[in-house]
Amino acid sequence: MVNETQHTCSASCSSKSDGSSSSGSESSKDSSRCSTPVLDADRHERLREKMRRRQDSGDKWFSLEFFPPRTANGAVNLISRFDRMGAGGPLFIDVTWHPAGDPGSDKETSSMIIANTAVNYCGLETILHMTCCNQTKDDITGHLQKAKRLGLKNIMALRGDPVGEEWEEEVDGFNYAVDLVKHIRNEFDDYFDICVAGYPTGHPEAESYEADLRHLKEKVFAGADFIITQLFFRSETFFKFMKDCQAIGITCPIIPGIFPIQGYHSLRQLVKLSKLEVPQEIKDVIEPIKDNDAAIRNYGVELAVSMCRELLDSGMVHGLHFYTLNREVATTEVLKCLGIWKEDPRRPLPWAVSAHPKRRVEDVRPIFWASRPKSYIYRTQEWDDFPNGRWGNSSSPAFGELKDYYLFYLKSKSPREELLKMWGEELTGEESVFEVFTCYITGEPNKNGYKVTCMPWNDDPLATETNLLKEQLEKVNRRGILTINSQPNINGKPSTDPIVGWGPSGGYVFQKAYLEFFTSSEIVTALLKVLKKYELRVNYHIVNVKGQNITNAPDLQPNAVTWGIFPGREIIQPTVVDPVSFLSWKDEAFALWIEQWAKLYEEESPSRMIIQYIHDNYYLVNLVDNDFPLENCLWQVVDDTFELLN
Amino acid sequence: MVNETQHTCSASCSSKSDGSSSSGSESSKDSSRCSTPVLDADRHERLREKMRRRQDSGDKWFSLEFFPPRTANGAVNLISRFDRMGAGGPLFIDVTWHPAGDPGSDKETSSMIIANTAVNYCGLETILHMTCCNQTKDDITGHLQKAKRLGLKNIMALRGDPVGEEWEEEVDGFNYAVDLVKHIRNEFDDYFDICVAGYPTGHPEAESYEADLRHLKEKVFAGADFIITQLFFRSETFFKFMKDCQAIGITCPIIPGIFPIQGYHSLRQLVKLSKLEVPQEIKDVIEPIKDNDAAIRNYGVELAVSMCRELLDSGMVHGLHFYTLNREVATTEVLKCLGIWKEDPRRPLPWAVSAHPKRRVEDVRPIFWASRPKSYIYRTQEWDDFPNGRWGNSSSPAFGELKDYYLFYLKSKSPREELLKMWGEELTGEESVFEVFTCYITGEPNKNGYKVTCMPWNDDPLATETNLLKEQLEKVNRRGILTINSQPNINGKPSTDPIVGWGPSGGYVFQKAYLEFFTSSEIVTALLKVLKKYELRVNYHIVNVKGQNITNAPDLQPNAVTWGIFPGREIIQPTVVDPVSFLSWKDEAFALWIEQWAKLYEEESPSRMIIQYIHDNYYLVNLVDNDFPLENCLWQVVDDTFELLN
Repeated sequence: MVNETQHTCSASCSSKSDGSSSSGSESSKDSSRCSTPVLDADRHERLREKMRRRQDSGDKWFSLEFFPPRTANGAVNLISRFDRMGAGGPLFIDVTWHPAGDPGSDKETSSMIIANTAVNYCGLETILHMTCCNQTKDDITGHLQKAKRLGLKNIMALRGDPVGEEWEEEVDGFNYAVDLVKHIRNEFDDYFDICVAGYPTGHPEAESYEADLRHLKEKVFAGADFIITQLFFRSETFFKFMKDCQAIGITCPIIPGIFPIQGYHSLRQLVKLSKLEVPQEIKDVIEPIKDNDAAIRNYGVELAVSMCRELLDSGMVHGLHFYTLNREVATTEVLKCLGIWKEDPRRPLPWAVSAHPKRRVEDVRPIFWASRPKSYIYRTQEWDDFPNGRWGNSSSPAFGELKDYYLFYLKSKSPREELLKMWGEELTGEESVFEVFTCYITGEPNKNGYKVTCMPWNDDPLATETNLLKEQLEKVNRRGILTINSQPNINGKPSTDPIVGWGPSGGYVFQKAYLEFFTSSEIVTALLKVLKKYELRVNYHIVNVKGQNITNAPDLQPNAVTWGIFPGREIIQPTVVDPVSFLSWKDEAFALWIEQWAKLYEEESPSRMIIQYIHDNYYLVNLVDNDFPLENCLWQVVDDTFELLN
Repeated sequence: MVNETQHTCSASCSSKSDGSSSSGSESSKDSSRCSTPVLDADRHERLREKMRRRQDSGDKWFSLEFFPPRTANGAVNLISRFDRMGAGGPLFIDVTWHPAGDPGSDKETSSMIIANTAVNYCGLETILHMTCCNQTKDDITGHLQKAKRLGLKNIMALRGDPVGEEWEEEVDGFNYAVDLVKHIRNEFDDYFDICVAGYPTGHPEAESYEADLRHLKEKVFAGADFIITQLFFRSETFFKFMKDCQAIGITCPIIPGIFPIQGYHSLRQLVKLSKLEVPQEIKDVIEPIKDNDAAIRNYGVELAVSMCRELLDSGMVHGLHFYTLNREVATTEVLKCLGIWKEDPRRPLPWAVSAHPKRRVEDVRPIFWASRPKSYIYRTQEWDDFPNGRWGNSSSPAFGELKDYYLFYLKSKSPREELLKMWGEELTGEESVFEVFTCYITGEPNKNGYKVTCMPWNDDPLATETNLLKEQLEKVNRRGILTINSQPNINGKPSTDPIVGWGPSGGYVFQKAYLEFFTSSEIVTALLKVLKKYELRVNYHIVNVKGQNITNAPDLQPNAVTWGIFPGREIIQPTVVDPVSFLSWKDEAFALWIEQWAKLYEEESPSRMIIQYIHDNYYLVNLVDNDFPLENCLWQVVDDTFELLN
């Protein structure tokens, strides 16, 4: 909302919505025989309900505002930031809307697509800003329909900047935010939660502070559910504003907008745009240190923390909204100082859930995409139903095509030169590939001194859980068992376990040991002989790029490999090895060799041919040790295989 | 088929069905996202597929023939026999059809209702016999439609006895079994598996042995799936018959009918009806011992075992069909001698599954009906869908009304006098009720010297599993915690465990400790205070007859209390504590006090008033200890409660 200006008209008030209505058209009523146990009320409530629940429970919260990036690379970085800042547990994030930037388009940098990514791929409750002035009704309806289709449930309704200096009201047009609020309620009934802007010192263009308050009341009475305020520099400003709002009958939540000062220039820029006055006492501190970014930021953090404390301690404020300016450090520091950044958020499921309403009941996924969850969401985005309770056998709807899986948010965050340093400027044989895998596991630098921090199959460094298996993984990768996914067996650890825990507290989580790797046909031949000895204990699927498939899975049934038992609930089994979707994953896993690795090298180059050879000749193998209470036998299986080969 | 006569006509042959078609209209293709892991192929295959699979695997099987009882008491006894003999693992049972006995009616003794009970309530694959002569097409279609509606999938198509001495063919009528076979295939396509009768020595009314073989071939070519033979006394008779059948192109399974001689008179009766000749060597043995039933039965068993061995050893026979004459001992002995009686049948689920095709996917039930499974099936018979994978929350279809739950197969097997001896001719107070409960648990005789072998809530003696809790149960019942259902906690025992195991081998089964009881409001008050200390660990539901309900279950969600983890499969959770269906169970559980116990006594009698008082004032309580890996805390909860009361 920083960078936005806003005005409200004096149109007549609708009697609708003060935020107290509790059931929306898509509220959490779809219980059925097969419905999911409500693992996490957050997944089933709309934003205004979450806000109310937090207020009732006295549980303080925060939210984060971002603006859309300018470039595709910027988008990739912003999405990584969503993931990192999402870990702190914001109640929602919001994405601003800039009419000049084609905000409703399909461009990877548009507000619409960034908000879509936040909801669907990062699993964040998201508010999409939308401005209305100088736009036709059809344009706006089109944007709203698209937002709904993408799974967005919340709109920040704004007027937007007038074009040019002189601004004139359009007859029957959208002149004020209140027109947009009414339009949303008229056209979409109660589908969206609507947020509007409040100006603690009055909107700069308003006739008066009082007139501005009346405009705000009109927006609320037209159907807005809550208010986020423009930034301010003193807590008293907010307290006065809040009391004045209450005095004229505004009862919905009012969330203070917090702007941690992060630098001299950004502050000046902001002040210019928002026409706010920076208090003299702040100017006095900043001016002398204006060239020392770190000092200004420290001061900004201190100032914000102290103001936020006053706000929270007043008992009038339950949540804080942060203008991040797309930066992480200052806001995160403030949140940590305040103690409302969730250091160790409880995971409702062992994988990050998507926030699309369609996926509300989803609680089972194949393990294969564990390190590529965004790819999984992308490839299942057309599904109408998501598995709930059980994966079920064989008839899953088709996975999306691979042809355009190379979406911007699935791109490696590292540029080509960096990848070459990690994965080898020049490969000399299959062994140099083994070395890359080994270095990724160990964290040791490769022979050129670079650490391997990602792999085509793993966007991120090794999961903490995988670290439990590090020693064995290193050993087998060195010998050409190129692991891309694994989990240890777990026989009933508390659901609060910091490494493997998930779900409500008081429960127990379980896992079957899992190992997935690429390996040569020579090793596969020996492995199959060894597996005969483990026939009843180990399930395997072995497939090459052509789809030749060897398995001992009974009737192509899925095998649950992660499950949890909780007080007063049904069993949750969020991860399965599903034989049918393994074949879809196989295509992706093999394609990554070429798309992400081979193509780093010149065509016909020896390095490229080595990767091509592996792609063409290796097998993708997955193994499950069903006997989870015993010691994981998969390492023994691999040892036996190497012994047989010697 | 004993007691039936049969003839085949020379009508032209249809090209249909030699039993090799593999997909019926209701075959096991209904896979969907939520479909059940195939726990037991038996539940999903039709009879002819089961037969083929057993033949392919070399796994010998047996089947049992019964005739409908004459009286309602006889029906109750026969159904107990189904349960006991079902435990030996017959591939199917069949129920004969006697036109004079109104076999298609709704009487509790009709063939139709007995077969219905076998399928639905005893979970047995069942063949219903049906005769066609002297019946209209509409009658027959009506019977078949009713059979289909009740979940029967297999018909033994017979001609039936002609009325009177002289029999004439009806033009366009049903004159021979082949007419019925054709009619079933015409009207019901491939829905039913059809069995027909074969006569190893030729039908007594046939022109010749060869003519009879041709008639049999016509029946098979008209669409019969397999043949069961009339009884015979020498294995050579069967071998010759089988070869002769094969020689003329009959390739479907031919199952020898075995008749263990059980007594002199039944043999004579049978021989008269079936017009068979008893071989001289058998007569020579029997005549001298004809008044010694035990000796004849021993001889009959010996004879049957020896003939069955010859049949099985020949490699031509995969299954044996027994004419039981509704008796258990001889047939069971033969089967045990042959080693094909399953001493320890693997339970696919911890409760007996129903064989109705509608219930094929059912794999979750509330624990409340654990000791009254037939009542559960009855009360859910109108459901269109059965829970599969998860029970789901709150929106189960309604349970059937209680008003006529007092069906013949739910009646106590014990007569009133016996119940009075067990439960007390005269009650002197609540304590005398406590004593009845205690005696049922301990197995000790009551003060009048009678053992209490059943209770209104438990048709059968204490389950083996419950014996694990005997000592504690005795203690608490003595003090007025009147237990009606309980299970110990189990933390991962092998699925093959003889007491608590179920499901495929190689798995692990788990349970949360469960305790359900009636108790006074005084104890409930103390219990609720104690439960505060266990708030996070123990879930409780406490309700009185008026429906006043106290619970700490989150959001009325079901709590899984039995589950299993198996190699290569999804998790199975067959038993839940469901808060919503608990209220339906509550009505039944309280009604049983009155219907089965209070009504044993005169109106206004002190005994009846004591039971009425308990019914009106006690609470029904269930407790789940969620912390299954720890020692069951429910006994501590009860101890604490008594301590608080002292």
